[in-house]
Amino acid sequence: MVNETQQPCSASSSSRSDGSSSGSEGSKDSSRCSTPVLDGDRHERLREKMRRRQEAGDRWFSLEFFPPRTANAAVNLISRFDRMGAGGPLFIDVTWHPAGDPGSDKETSSMIIANTAVNYCGLETILHMTCCNQTTDDITRHLQKAKRLGLKNIMALRGDPAGEEWEEEVDGFNHAVDLVKHIRNEFDDYFDICVAGYPKGHPEAESYEADLRHLKEKVFAGADFIITQLFFRPETFFKFMKDCQAIGITCPIIPGIFPIQGYHSLRQLVKLSKLEVPQEIKDVIEPIKDNDAAIRNYGVELAVSMCRELLDSGMVHGLHFYTLNREVATTEVLKRLGLWNEDPRRPLPWAVSAHPKRRVEDVRPIFWASRPKSYIYRTQEWDDFPNGRWGNSSSPAFGELKDYYLFYLKSKSPREELLKMWGEELTGEESVFEVFTCYITGEPNKNGYKVTCMPWNDDPLATETNLLKDQLEKVNRRGILTINSQPNINGKPSTDPIVGWGPSGGYVFQKAYLEFFASSEIVTALLKVLKKYELRVNYHIVNVKGQNITNAPDLQPNAVTWGIFPGREIIQPTVVDPVSFLYWKDEAFALWIEQWAKLYEEESPSRMIIQYIHDNYYLVNLVDNDFPLENCLWQVVDDTFELLN
Amino acid sequence: MVNETQQPCSASSSSRSDGSSSGSEGSKDSSRCSTPVLDGDRHERLREKMRRRQEAGDRWFSLEFFPPRTANAAVNLISRFDRMGAGGPLFIDVTWHPAGDPGSDKETSSMIIANTAVNYCGLETILHMTCCNQTTDDITRHLQKAKRLGLKNIMALRGDPAGEEWEEEVDGFNHAVDLVKHIRNEFDDYFDICVAGYPKGHPEAESYEADLRHLKEKVFAGADFIITQLFFRPETFFKFMKDCQAIGITCPIIPGIFPIQGYHSLRQLVKLSKLEVPQEIKDVIEPIKDNDAAIRNYGVELAVSMCRELLDSGMVHGLHFYTLNREVATTEVLKRLGLWNEDPRRPLPWAVSAHPKRRVEDVRPIFWASRPKSYIYRTQEWDDFPNGRWGNSSSPAFGELKDYYLFYLKSKSPREELLKMWGEELTGEESVFEVFTCYITGEPNKNGYKVTCMPWNDDPLATETNLLKDQLEKVNRRGILTINSQPNINGKPSTDPIVGWGPSGGYVFQKAYLEFFASSEIVTALLKVLKKYELRVNYHIVNVKGQNITNAPDLQPNAVTWGIFPGREIIQPTVVDPVSFLYWKDEAFALWIEQWAKLYEEESPSRMIIQYIHDNYYLVNLVDNDFPLENCLWQVVDDTFELLN
Repeated sequence: MVNETQQPCSASSSSRSDGSSSGSEGSKDSSRCSTPVLDGDRHERLREKMRRRQEAGDRWFSLEFFPPRTANAAVNLISRFDRMGAGGPLFIDVTWHPAGDPGSDKETSSMIIANTAVNYCGLETILHMTCCNQTTDDITRHLQKAKRLGLKNIMALRGDPAGEEWEEEVDGFNHAVDLVKHIRNEFDDYFDICVAGYPKGHPEAESYEADLRHLKEKVFAGADFIITQLFFRPETFFKFMKDCQAIGITCPIIPGIFPIQGYHSLRQLVKLSKLEVPQEIKDVIEPIKDNDAAIRNYGVELAVSMCRELLDSGMVHGLHFYTLNREVATTEVLKRLGLWNEDPRRPLPWAVSAHPKRRVEDVRPIFWASRPKSYIYRTQEWDDFPNGRWGNSSSPAFGELKDYYLFYLKSKSPREELLKMWGEELTGEESVFEVFTCYITGEPNKNGYKVTCMPWNDDPLATETNLLKDQLEKVNRRGILTINSQPNINGKPSTDPIVGWGPSGGYVFQKAYLEFFASSEIVTALLKVLKKYELRVNYHIVNVKGQNITNAPDLQPNAVTWGIFPGREIIQPTVVDPVSFLYWKDEAFALWIEQWAKLYEEESPSRMIIQYIHDNYYLVNLVDNDFPLENCLWQVVDDTFELLN
Repeated sequence: MVNETQQPCSASSSSRSDGSSSGSEGSKDSSRCSTPVLDGDRHERLREKMRRRQEAGDRWFSLEFFPPRTANAAVNLISRFDRMGAGGPLFIDVTWHPAGDPGSDKETSSMIIANTAVNYCGLETILHMTCCNQTTDDITRHLQKAKRLGLKNIMALRGDPAGEEWEEEVDGFNHAVDLVKHIRNEFDDYFDICVAGYPKGHPEAESYEADLRHLKEKVFAGADFIITQLFFRPETFFKFMKDCQAIGITCPIIPGIFPIQGYHSLRQLVKLSKLEVPQEIKDVIEPIKDNDAAIRNYGVELAVSMCRELLDSGMVHGLHFYTLNREVATTEVLKRLGLWNEDPRRPLPWAVSAHPKRRVEDVRPIFWASRPKSYIYRTQEWDDFPNGRWGNSSSPAFGELKDYYLFYLKSKSPREELLKMWGEELTGEESVFEVFTCYITGEPNKNGYKVTCMPWNDDPLATETNLLKDQLEKVNRRGILTINSQPNINGKPSTDPIVGWGPSGGYVFQKAYLEFFASSEIVTALLKVLKKYELRVNYHIVNVKGQNITNAPDLQPNAVTWGIFPGREIIQPTVVDPVSFLYWKDEAFALWIEQWAKLYEEESPSRMIIQYIHDNYYLVNLVDNDFPLENCLWQVVDDTFELLN
């Protein structure tokens, strides 16, 4: 009836089951050791995730991107990572172009784009790396840098020879297998390694069979899985897979899917890959070659039908998409296949970074809720991250703001657009109130433009904030300029589409939070009102000079979001931390100047208005501790306005 | 309007308030450091607590005990510590009797009694220590041992000379001041030091004035506060206090109160202290000297009236009681004075240990809820204690059970009493069921005795468990032998008299928990039933041999008690930890044999019944994760019985 399961520790053995009171034999000199556990998913290596998904019968997809050419294109690509990341790819990969200085610190290098994907977008990422025409030192240096940045997966490629006439170098890197061996020699098992498979054989290989043997060498040298070159017919893949298995290749083989998105991109790809497009496809495309939409529709149809056939075969569990850095076609295919995750389960209410150093991180200050990339940037030098509890951080050592203009912290919108949204010319503080109000309501401003971003929020209003829209509108109109807020939640299911997060079967909670800028007149009245709420509402009020007023006990953090789950410890992912607030304050005030004031000429009235607000307003945050009752913060604000009248 | 408050860190300075985006200047190479914060109270030194209470205008009391002579008396004294500790003394102190080997490891030594008070009863404790006729080495050794055990306060005394004719030793310890100096020299500021004051002057002093000068020397040598010898009239104390102040003694002076409890104890004390009993007291006592109750009533009246006068003077904030190890009179005086804490605020749902090493501890496994001393004993070698989160304790290293007979883990009841409660003769498993049932109901067993303790619970049923009484009775009658349980709680105020704990203004929560022994027949049916509750109920089922069945994900702990408080992080003081459960299992099964089976002759049928249960039953724990809904564990048990029928 009862199965004996593995004993998880030396706690008990049958030799001590004789009824004596000898008890358990924990070593006395070793003390308790504990390692925190979050989602297993965050700890797993890519190859383990892949295996687990396969064992569970889950189907998955991955997305390939190439590095952009300009800083602006990089900003756009990273927004795309965020949007496409929401669909739930198992990983993304970033290609490597030797001519483009791919290992450099440039905003557009393969290395930095992959770094951004991992650290700032929280995506499991494979960095491509080619080896031909490179020195051992160069390659080792690139790999060391990748490791230092938190990258854990490499796609090992030979790369295209520099000249037309390529000759093997003695003792050099001549084939991908040399790179695989080098990675395993120098970095042991640290990296998961992916290699390329050619369903039709590599164009330069002596034969299809010879190419298969090379592939086997790569796998036996230590590659963990294979991604194939694109192909046009499912049979091509099935044959390739069977041939691989026949010669003893047992690792996962992931088909590379190329949704045709346009006539020219297809032609270029065919040229590069030296693949032949089947006649039946040419027959369809040629007549519509000038109709981009028609070609894309056809491409989507074709990809969907091929993917279905691949998945239905039972031989394929994951699909790899060559996106060409475009969103529409791939997303469409994924949605049609049912692979796009419409309701992604958020493990935490904020996007988790994929850097191994941060894998236990599960608490953050609420202040950076709309600027998570800035938070990650400013804490990148931390050796360990808060886990379970924020603690009383006496020295949080936030990074400086001097590299403020790092491209991924810049606004996605150009200056002209920002001016249209925030006003070509400001006539007084009220014009600023109006911008805040338009952002909240979604109504166009007086010049007919919608305000879709603010210096403190680079995206439209969050769904959750929408719950508070009416109240927020009212207070912003009167000069309580809100930049962050959350409603109170008293035990909603963790699967709630708006406020839910974490494993299913749990309950999530929040204390109401409101953060805003306000004039000293408002703050004076507010402080009087807050006396009535002394035991219920915690506040922190600070101006740009660091004058700081608070009723928080000691310097203790206040947990404002937490979740209770089956079979787990409590998770409390956001806190209001008094010490961090003073670091955030610097950033929040600086954004007035850096993002808004500097849109205008020096000495211009518009610029002086923003400068005045920056110099004289206070940054306020309020927490209503009584989360089971109706949020009292609106009453606090109403009382304040009443007092002012 | 706005006050500039102290900046808690280097986060901001006015030099950077010029509107530039320089931001905060956290050092980049120092990483985040954090220290957890619980109640300030648990961190403070005794002298700081005293000062804080005085500043807040709080009145407090403390209790003096002497070490017991026998192990049985020690067990009783420790129960008294628990009961009188519930009244909220600021500290207790334990006297030192050189003749009784006070620094030894004996169960009855001053050192071990003080150790027990601190570590197992969670009481702030002062250990007395005398110095005359002792070597420097001896004294240093005692102090080192005290420090090692977690004692933090010493009452430095000269002690009584061994012979009648005492002579000062050159370079020896001749006066308490020598001990004070020695402690400060050797242990710096580690200990808080208390010294004795004699309101009538020390009987051996040349004069009252000379004695005051000696007291001043002790204070200037490093003593933190003074406790006085007993006295009979408030004026005696007021004069003493003024005289002390006049010569520059400014530390707290705590009056020692001696409630007269009997004719003989008064005579003995008077003889030892060489004090004279005022005629007006003698006049009352002599006529009633054979009427203990009358003398005690008089003593209480006298003490209450003197204490009131002391407190009303405004010069006295705390009262020190010479209890003579008795409970009734002192408790009565304290209740009459309103100093007895009728509703002590529990900082955590379990009694917190006062050892400095454990001061951040705020998570424990639920299994030892009724055996906290055993838990403290078994974890005493840990170097650090779980704080904020239990974590995935891969090696919790619980101490062995071999010292099982340590007096403080023994039952308070003698064998004869246990036999009356648990049955002189058992006739089958059903007789065991009956004992469990009687313990739950509080009804007498068939021989007319109430069952007030069980091997797993040395005290009558907890108030909280009473909430579940009816259901518990029903299931115990049928062989689900419960040893631990808690109801689910969905956000009751932290001030709730039954389930509340922690600072006021908060909310406490619990998941329903049930732990019991049951036969393999019941467990077989239970496992079938549990399939229906797979996602809702977590279970761990184990027998004495360590056969272990669970549906807990990985080896993650499940938080079953937590609290949300204003301006704080979440506190989750109890968890169901799968690894610790296997250590607890050894203890829980051993208790059948050690405490129950061994009451009977070897080979006797009664003993064989208990042995059979020990060998064949399972220990089961169940958690209902859905705390906002009605507890489903009773339904699980009902379904199990139904399946068995």
